[in-house]
Amino acid sequence: MKGNGKGERERGGLELLRGAEAIGLAALMSGVEAYFGYPITPSSEIMEFMASEQGDPRFPRYRAFVQASSEVEAVNMLMGAGAAGHLAMTATSGLGLSLMVEGISHAYTAGVPFLIVDVNRGGPGLGTTEAEQSDYLLVTKSLGSGGSRAIVLAPQGVEEAMEHVNRGFRLAFEYRIPVVILTDAIVAHMRETVDMKAVSSELVPVDPGDTGWATRGKRGRAVRNMLTTGFLDSRDLRAFKEEAMRRWARISAREASHECYMCDGASTIYVSFGISARIAREVVDEMREEGVDAGLFRAVTLSPFPAAGLSRLRGRGIRFRVMEMNEGQMYHDVREVLGPDEDVELVPLMGGIVTRSEV
Amino acid sequence: MKGNGKGERERGGLELLRGAEAIGLAALMSGVEAYFGYPITPSSEIMEFMASEQGDPRFPRYRAFVQASSEVEAVNMLMGAGAAGHLAMTATSGLGLSLMVEGISHAYTAGVPFLIVDVNRGGPGLGTTEAEQSDYLLVTKSLGSGGSRAIVLAPQGVEEAMEHVNRGFRLAFEYRIPVVILTDAIVAHMRETVDMKAVSSELVPVDPGDTGWATRGKRGRAVRNMLTTGFLDSRDLRAFKEEAMRRWARISAREASHECYMCDGASTIYVSFGISARIAREVVDEMREEGVDAGLFRAVTLSPFPAAGLSRLRGRGIRFRVMEMNEGQMYHDVREVLGPDEDVELVPLMGGIVTRSEV
Amino acid sequence: MKGNGKGERERGGLELLRGAEAIGLAALMSGVEAYFGYPITPSSEIMEFMASEQGDPRFPRYRAFVQASSEVEAVNMLMGAGAAGHLAMTATSGLGLSLMVEGISHAYTAGVPFLIVDVNRGGPGLGTTEAEQSDYLLVTKSLGSGGSRAIVLAPQGVEEAMEHVNRGFRLAFEYRIPVVILTDAIVAHMRETVDMKAVSSELVPVDPGDTGWATRGKRGRAVRNMLTTGFLDSRDLRAFKEEAMRRWARISAREASHECYMCDGASTIYVSFGISARIAREVVDEMREEGVDAGLFRAVTLSPFPAAGLSRLRGRGIRFRVMEMNEGQMYHDVREVLGPDEDVELVPLMGGIVTRSEV
Amino acid sequence: MKGNGKGERERGGLELLRGAEAIGLAALMSGVEAYFGYPITPSSEIMEFMASEQGDPRFPRYRAFVQASSEVEAVNMLMGAGAAGHLAMTATSGLGLSLMVEGISHAYTAGVPFLIVDVNRGGPGLGTTEAEQSDYLLVTKSLGSGGSRAIVLAPQGVEEAMEHVNRGFRLAFEYRIPVVILTDAIVAHMRETVDMKAVSSELVPVDPGDTGWATRGKRGRAVRNMLTTGFLDSRDLRAFKEEAMRRWARISAREASHECYMCDGASTIYVSFGISARIAREVVDEMREEGVDAGLFRAVTLSPFPAAGLSRLRGRGIRFRVMEMNEGQMYHDVREVLGPDEDVELVPLMGGIVTRSEV
Repeated sequence: MKGNGKGERERGGLELLRGAEAIGLAALMSGVEAYFGYPITPSSEIMEFMASEQGDPRFPRYRAFVQASSEVEAVNMLMGAGAAGHLAMTATSGLGLSLMVEGISHAYTAGVPFLIVDVNRGGPGLGTTEAEQSDYLLVTKSLGSGGSRAIVLAPQGVEEAMEHVNRGFRLAFEYRIPVVILTDAIVAHMRETVDMKAVSSELVPVDPGDTGWATRGKRGRAVRNMLTTGFLDSRDLRAFKEEAMRRWARISAREASHECYMCDGASTIYVSFGISARIAREVVDEMREEGVDAGLFRAVTLSPFPAAGLSRLRGRGIRFRVMEMNEGQMYHDVREVLGPDEDVELVPLMGGIVTRSEV
Repeated sequence: MKGNGKGERERGGLELLRGAEAIGLAALMSGVEAYFGYPITPSSEIMEFMASEQGDPRFPRYRAFVQASSEVEAVNMLMGAGAAGHLAMTATSGLGLSLMVEGISHAYTAGVPFLIVDVNRGGPGLGTTEAEQSDYLLVTKSLGSGGSRAIVLAPQGVEEAMEHVNRGFRLAFEYRIPVVILTDAIVAHMRETVDMKAVSSELVPVDPGDTGWATRGKRGRAVRNMLTTGFLDSRDLRAFKEEAMRRWARISAREASHECYMCDGASTIYVSFGISARIAREVVDEMREEGVDAGLFRAVTLSPFPAAGLSRLRGRGIRFRVMEMNEGQMYHDVREVLGPDEDVELVPLMGGIVTRSEV
Repeated sequence: MKGNGKGERERGGLELLRGAEAIGLAALMSGVEAYFGYPITPSSEIMEFMASEQGDPRFPRYRAFVQASSEVEAVNMLMGAGAAGHLAMTATSGLGLSLMVEGISHAYTAGVPFLIVDVNRGGPGLGTTEAEQSDYLLVTKSLGSGGSRAIVLAPQGVEEAMEHVNRGFRLAFEYRIPVVILTDAIVAHMRETVDMKAVSSELVPVDPGDTGWATRGKRGRAVRNMLTTGFLDSRDLRAFKEEAMRRWARISAREASHECYMCDGASTIYVSFGISARIAREVVDEMREEGVDAGLFRAVTLSPFPAAGLSRLRGRGIRFRVMEMNEGQMYHDVREVLGPDEDVELVPLMGGIVTRSEV
Repeated sequence: MKGNGKGERERGGLELLRGAEAIGLAALMSGVEAYFGYPITPSSEIMEFMASEQGDPRFPRYRAFVQASSEVEAVNMLMGAGAAGHLAMTATSGLGLSLMVEGISHAYTAGVPFLIVDVNRGGPGLGTTEAEQSDYLLVTKSLGSGGSRAIVLAPQGVEEAMEHVNRGFRLAFEYRIPVVILTDAIVAHMRETVDMKAVSSELVPVDPGDTGWATRGKRGRAVRNMLTTGFLDSRDLRAFKEEAMRRWARISAREASHECYMCDGASTIYVSFGISARIAREVVDEMREEGVDAGLFRAVTLSPFPAAGLSRLRGRGIRFRVMEMNEGQMYHDVREVLGPDEDVELVPLMGGIVTRSEV
């Protein structure tokens, strides 16, 4: 893995990778076949990387790169490639993702797998191009109408972002569902040392499994499959939803994940995700040094939310501090789990601004 | 209010109105100036009515009707008219609304008022054209990225839908925020008797108030105002969000509304909204006849959610049954308010199907 | 006709009007009902004027103004309004017109009347925003595929532009055909004195005549007419084309028009149109002063080309000088009429640049 | 060249090829690198063939295939690939080509090479899906505004269509100009025997030559070239046009081509192109058998028109019959060359219908 701006140094398998390139590289290593997108800061570096990787002989499965004319078009290209059983991905930011939710709703309904990387910028509106985590509600509550949803992963750094790309493709095909990686401008733009030896052993090409459901054309043969998102009557819709609920229950039981850091016996526990969980961890370390028994509960999957794991911390008199780079979004999921009687305080790092006195 | 298919019978001020036409008529009576939209079942009758009303001399303020080439375009037309201080509206359904959320995020950020009527069809995806309430999460949690939101009203019938149109325009201009009316295919298509005398006294033209903020051009004068949704740096974004939080706190304190029906002393309380609240009320009546002391908590505003009102019912050993035409969406708001220790059960009327044994 | 920036001075009915505003005013006086467009320099002033005239009580027939999202959309709006029998217009420039030719082809085929003002800028490509006459071939030869065409008028100044707007609407409805006014950046932007008294008597609202062919919907009645541009088989297409040829022969016989200035006995005759014909006239005047018996043949209609009028000048040993602001476009029509044996020289004012020594 | 539906039989290098596939195959053999398009009957088979050829190891230069969301988008993709110095092509039909002319105007101005195959269907409007030659004016007179043009080739059968694809790419890069192949539904859909041995020796990959002008990005290097279609002032535009005129004069002198068949001493000469030239040739043969000394002048390039070749036939008392599948389009070019005194008659095969008594 040398040259081409992908790695700046190599020493014993360690490589200094920028988040955006690492995400693209992870996709290639995972066997991504198609990238469709429309540029938007701060996600554009991923797209640029994928553009530059066209024709790289190390990744022969990577065959299609298209800059669509809009995010609406891009998501429908994802739909097309995913429906044909191919590994397809895009990267975007909040406003772009907003334009994709109608398409995601179709993909959720038809069981079409693909991967979307949301590099969260400040919002709402044009907002800023700096980091926030304010797309939490958008990605976890309703990616489109009618209760559409996706699996959402939230890496806290470059190496985990790479792992999440691989995991994302696997989950997308295992459950035939769109997967979103919610990351942000900090992770996408920072450089971190990645243990490429370790990563390479994990980031093996994803096997899409039995894609007998896919709508692949073939010369001289009628199209076998039909993927549709409409239902003849309400009973069909209901049946679909009941099945979708069972599928989601399986996903929740198996895939919801979190990390506890020094939670045992902690009197103060930060609840956080992604890049702000890293900040929280530093705060915890400092507090520990100061003699305060602090801990950290980090949600790794945001959807499904690791409710069971968090619930176990109820009733212990813990002071919870929900730290997120927004005005309080995951906060509501935490409150729902912990209930109104627990001591839960919001630490809203709005605008992505971390002020020492607040955290 | 006669002729033109708007009212079928008149007797002492009573008129039999179809929901879609009633919504359009209420908009005209409220002084709507512009309608922009793209047709989608089951909302299209509202658009057709507004198309046919062009040039009606009774409503001289109604000046512009445009069928846009897509929902993306329609919402940007709403943005334009609203930014100029005009009363503008659209009607759509889930998939169409999904395409509008990027625009709504800009409107929320720039403080641009307009009214969107979401006639909920079955979803996700194309779903069905029958009624559901499965856009609850979309309209209350994630109207775009970065934490965008709107005020959401949920009428339970034709006459209330008319009142909500008027209230919606007033709220939109008072708080300079988009307003969504979440209704459904049943309300839009059913005919109900409306007391036009009473309605007419309420549905007076909405005064947009001081629109000194609006971006109205004028010959020979430079544009005075600039409405933007981007921020120079994160501190500006943070300042905007702090102000937006204060605005939302005011909205929550003043505008959150609900209705209690026989809640006092009830041992079983249905929690519901919109058309399913009407079904719940019938169930309550039947239960009361059978000697069960049942009640109904109806959320009239979905966003802000009437948390304070609901919270008062905690700790009384009540059995709560959340009835909604989806797989459980408002259910999470209810759980967040009531906490994990209350007895809260979901009655999910998925596909809009009401089965006696389930409710 | 005072105020509103339309006329700067009034003295005995004389008014100083800018070309763009005069064109818009003429449209309003002619009873235009709808304006659809997309801005492009140097035509945008027409659109701006039409935007500002919305709601002017003097022109109650003017009901719809829409800035479309592209020229493709604008021409399809023209198609819709024209198909319903309404007077509709747009203004654009070469690149914008290029995007409209597919729509014009449909209008030509379905017999849908509307008016397009092409304010010629320098081209090809983005070219310049200065005047040229280089859209001659586009408007006279190839407004779309399959031999689509339009009637094309070429005014030489502001007052004639106003007359052409009125004439254009009349021709469009009389022959059910699109009409193009080919003008340029000079005419659109210059101010000229217009005799409003004379103009007002001419620019009366255009009667669309019997529009029994139009596709007007009406409540409770099935759509009566069908306007289509497709044919079931080649014989139907052939029959349509034969009828279209007969229609065009009638148009050519009745509507082809030109002006001769001092042609009798002239040994040198300029052949020109639009603004360059005015320059040519000045040249003729100067040459006459210098004793040269020069003359001017000005094509007023470009399509149909006034071939019969020009043909009469054959065989007289005249030296023809075709002066046009392009690289030689009308030149070919002139050559076709006059034949290879006449002395025909091109004076190509490319880039709209007039160099004394060349003319 | 076997299998894959490209050739049905092979015998001594002879292969039965369908026009559409032959055109695609010729493009691949010529080294085409990118295909962008939007389907329209009767051109879609070319696009389908190019879609199916993705990844064919025999044509490693062929790297990109995109079905754009419209012809407007497709032509801009051609612009992008051509501007980067790549061999790119599309196929379309009249209405689709109409939507491309704005883009072609930019390509003509910026000197961007690409190849467009226009499979002429009946027109104007939707017309029919059968063959016509009614796009002649569109492709030869004004592919966009401001005097844009392209080189236009008109093959009369499958094998010549293959040669024209190769010649088209060569001309496009030699002169840095868009090239159009005007063919029709008959040629695209008929099967003809092609001498693959002969064709293979001719259809060698086209060398794009020195593409130092191309806008190729490269990591770590600033973009070297700027291709623009706008000019700072009219003098720049004029200078461009003067150079463009010189370029066109070179093209006309070197590339205009025609075929004479039994023209020497003929008293009746058919003037024709493409598929109708083949019909004319049969007519000539029959007439010869009947003792009439007929001949055929076939225009191989339509733009530049082979005026010099045709002009040589003037003044010989020949009866010219211009036979084309339209209402008389090339007829005007013929008239311009021959002049009003020659005996020139139009044989308009409108709707693509050939009636024995008419030809």
